[in-house]
Amino acid sequence: MLEQLKQDVYQANLDLVKHGLVIFTWGNVSGIDETRQYVVIKPSGVKYEDMKAEDMVVVDLAGQVIEGSLNPSSDTMTHVELYKQFPSIKGVVHTHSKWATTYSQLKRPIPPLGTTHADYFNQAIPVTRPLELQEIRTDYEWNTGKVIVETFTTKNINPLHCPAVLVHEHGPFAWGDSVHNAVHNAVVLEYLADMAYHIEVLQDATPINQDLLNKHFNRKHGKDAYYGQKL
Amino acid sequence: MLEQLKQDVYQANLDLVKHGLVIFTWGNVSGIDETRQYVVIKPSGVKYEDMKAEDMVVVDLAGQVIEGSLNPSSDTMTHVELYKQFPSIKGVVHTHSKWATTYSQLKRPIPPLGTTHADYFNQAIPVTRPLELQEIRTDYEWNTGKVIVETFTTKNINPLHCPAVLVHEHGPFAWGDSVHNAVHNAVVLEYLADMAYHIEVLQDATPINQDLLNKHFNRKHGKDAYYGQKL
Amino acid sequence: MLEQLKQDVYQANLDLVKHGLVIFTWGNVSGIDETRQYVVIKPSGVKYEDMKAEDMVVVDLAGQVIEGSLNPSSDTMTHVELYKQFPSIKGVVHTHSKWATTYSQLKRPIPPLGTTHADYFNQAIPVTRPLELQEIRTDYEWNTGKVIVETFTTKNINPLHCPAVLVHEHGPFAWGDSVHNAVHNAVVLEYLADMAYHIEVLQDATPINQDLLNKHFNRKHGKDAYYGQKL
Amino acid sequence: MLEQLKQDVYQANLDLVKHGLVIFTWGNVSGIDETRQYVVIKPSGVKYEDMKAEDMVVVDLAGQVIEGSLNPSSDTMTHVELYKQFPSIKGVVHTHSKWATTYSQLKRPIPPLGTTHADYFNQAIPVTRPLELQEIRTDYEWNTGKVIVETFTTKNINPLHCPAVLVHEHGPFAWGDSVHNAVHNAVVLEYLADMAYHIEVLQDATPINQDLLNKHFNRKHGKDAYYGQKL
Repeated sequence: MLEQLKQDVYQANLDLVKHGLVIFTWGNVSGIDETRQYVVIKPSGVKYEDMKAEDMVVVDLAGQVIEGSLNPSSDTMTHVELYKQFPSIKGVVHTHSKWATTYSQLKRPIPPLGTTHADYFNQAIPVTRPLELQEIRTDYEWNTGKVIVETFTTKNINPLHCPAVLVHEHGPFAWGDSVHNAVHNAVVLEYLADMAYHIEVLQDATPINQDLLNKHFNRKHGKDAYYGQKL
Repeated sequence: MLEQLKQDVYQANLDLVKHGLVIFTWGNVSGIDETRQYVVIKPSGVKYEDMKAEDMVVVDLAGQVIEGSLNPSSDTMTHVELYKQFPSIKGVVHTHSKWATTYSQLKRPIPPLGTTHADYFNQAIPVTRPLELQEIRTDYEWNTGKVIVETFTTKNINPLHCPAVLVHEHGPFAWGDSVHNAVHNAVVLEYLADMAYHIEVLQDATPINQDLLNKHFNRKHGKDAYYGQKL
Repeated sequence: MLEQLKQDVYQANLDLVKHGLVIFTWGNVSGIDETRQYVVIKPSGVKYEDMKAEDMVVVDLAGQVIEGSLNPSSDTMTHVELYKQFPSIKGVVHTHSKWATTYSQLKRPIPPLGTTHADYFNQAIPVTRPLELQEIRTDYEWNTGKVIVETFTTKNINPLHCPAVLVHEHGPFAWGDSVHNAVHNAVVLEYLADMAYHIEVLQDATPINQDLLNKHFNRKHGKDAYYGQKL
Repeated sequence: MLEQLKQDVYQANLDLVKHGLVIFTWGNVSGIDETRQYVVIKPSGVKYEDMKAEDMVVVDLAGQVIEGSLNPSSDTMTHVELYKQFPSIKGVVHTHSKWATTYSQLKRPIPPLGTTHADYFNQAIPVTRPLELQEIRTDYEWNTGKVIVETFTTKNINPLHCPAVLVHEHGPFAWGDSVHNAVHNAVVLEYLADMAYHIEVLQDATPINQDLLNKHFNRKHGKDAYYGQKL
């Protein structure tokens, strides 16, 4: 089942390596099917060079394996929670990419400092609150998903206008309206984190002029976008 | 029309990837024809791996498409303004390369700190003033070009003696007396920004001795240059 | 003798290059045989591109060459001491990898700042005390091994729960329950040092929540581990 | 004439690119013949990809071209002065490699902070004094060589015990007892500068224990060296 989605998710996992976001078996990508009933995700702890498209695991929205002989990523329940609560997203990526993880470990948001940020994110990229002891001990990965959702809900953030988050002392999750775009956003996130870090070393971060941010975000997104080609 | 220029501009866009200045479809290169009537520029939002030389778009100096089925780069009007006001330049490059963009977001010029800088630029690389609200809302890309020109005009800078600029909270534009040299200067700019950044982290930037700067600039440029081979 | 182990050690030395941990002939990997009588180690000062599996040198636990026509690594006695005192380890790696060496030269431990660290190390990665003058002058490499062991013994650290150390003003040693995992841990060490460094530049290092550290370490190690595939 | 030396110098120039020390036509390597009468050096401003071994230029110790149709490197007189005053060296390298150039522009020596430094250099890597105005205006490149020699002479430094220097506000020169080792030392210099920089950002540089420095330097150099294979 879902052979094309497996192929897309498999390819997207390889793209994490190509873009330098992961080493070893770190990182995982998933995608959700059109009916939003099934999630296809990377198996846990399998080397990228040994992995095949048919190794991708199909789970339902309770995280139960529907198809596949391997264990799904240990982060599966985080992915599932995001798909359940963010109905506009179709792909999710988790990495420990260096600069985004550095911000997670700094426990501060990535401020919007220029138009590169504004081309993809219309605000600072938030960091979650820490998990409570009980949230760590039981259903840890599910609670990680819940605290991400809480971050967006309490601040009323549209997940497609800010397609990534920093999990406190952990690392980034990114997403998108397709599996491919989820990876794309994870790459952009890393680029933004890298630049923002180096700015914060030299001077206090002053957010980009709000009008300039709006201009760049709307130039690429929304009804009056004029970047790229008409489809 | 302008098939050789299309080939040069196409190759120069690929060179941005080769030199690590752009990811995805970020960045764009253009060139102007000998008559200075037509500008050849990269199409907007087309993947580098799918792009062909014949996809390059020809526009006139009003920014109107003269030839080509794709939309030109959304930054076309910035390029056009530079060609109109800087008659000595024949190629323009825009990227969000990491270190030059970091300086744009720091909103400070790149100081001349050594002979590597002096080999290409005879002064600090300036940062533009911020755009006004009205300049952002209407004709944004054209106004970006105008504010670059204003930076050079008010400070009386020869654009070939300082072949790059940092747009405030945005990123760099570089240029040259050929399409190839515009890319070359964009690479040098990134290298200089990288080194200058790391010096500014450790100590206050003290500009290079002016005589040493002159020596190195004139060793490679102008009538008494003795670097390289006689042509 | 020990042809498979020679092959593993040879491959592991090449992997140091592949992972960017060494340049030139810097760095060395060894492995111990099942009987824990013989150590197979890289020869001293031989270029990686010229090296063959059969060039690996076999020494006993006194550091005497048992087989091989080349001199063993000048660091052999450090490796031997680690195998003697840490009976759970089967592979040892020494490099001057950039970020871990930077921490050795900073003379401070790598603090546990996030779950990436906790996935492999259940505490800060320690730095040894400096060697005394007499320890430098006589049996320098053996004393280097002894001071590493002292670091772990006095602090009662399980070497497989913290599979690396920073030698004061020198560089890192890493190890593992196999030759392959020793290299893996050396790569992780470098990644952690890189991230920790950049965090320490911006703010005082606050160690990761201890419950979160335990969760991630135990998710991958020990009897209740659920990361990866059942073997 | 000197075909083998031309081949060595040509290959060494390509190695600068391979090791990431130069971009474009930056950087140059030379070698001196056994009689110490002739220096073979890279031509000025020729692209590495177009360069052939036979393009290497032969000059005498007055800097006059003895063989070759291209102009020699504009830095030729610096190389020549080093060969004249440092009779133990047989190869010279000049680059604008990022970290060593950063130290040149910081105008401070690279302190000896660990055993990686001590394996190659038995003291801090010095920075020259600035050139005087008259030294810049006339015979600039020759004076650059003279100020390097002055740095070593006044401090009584053996150039093979400290095979590199930082030219004030310019960049590094490195050398060695062969063309190949000159490049090797330039690579090591860059690695040391990179690590030292990052240490100096976080804390004041405390030089490595002098006994440990001596131990590592003498382990690889001089009569009691025991690193590597007997020749």
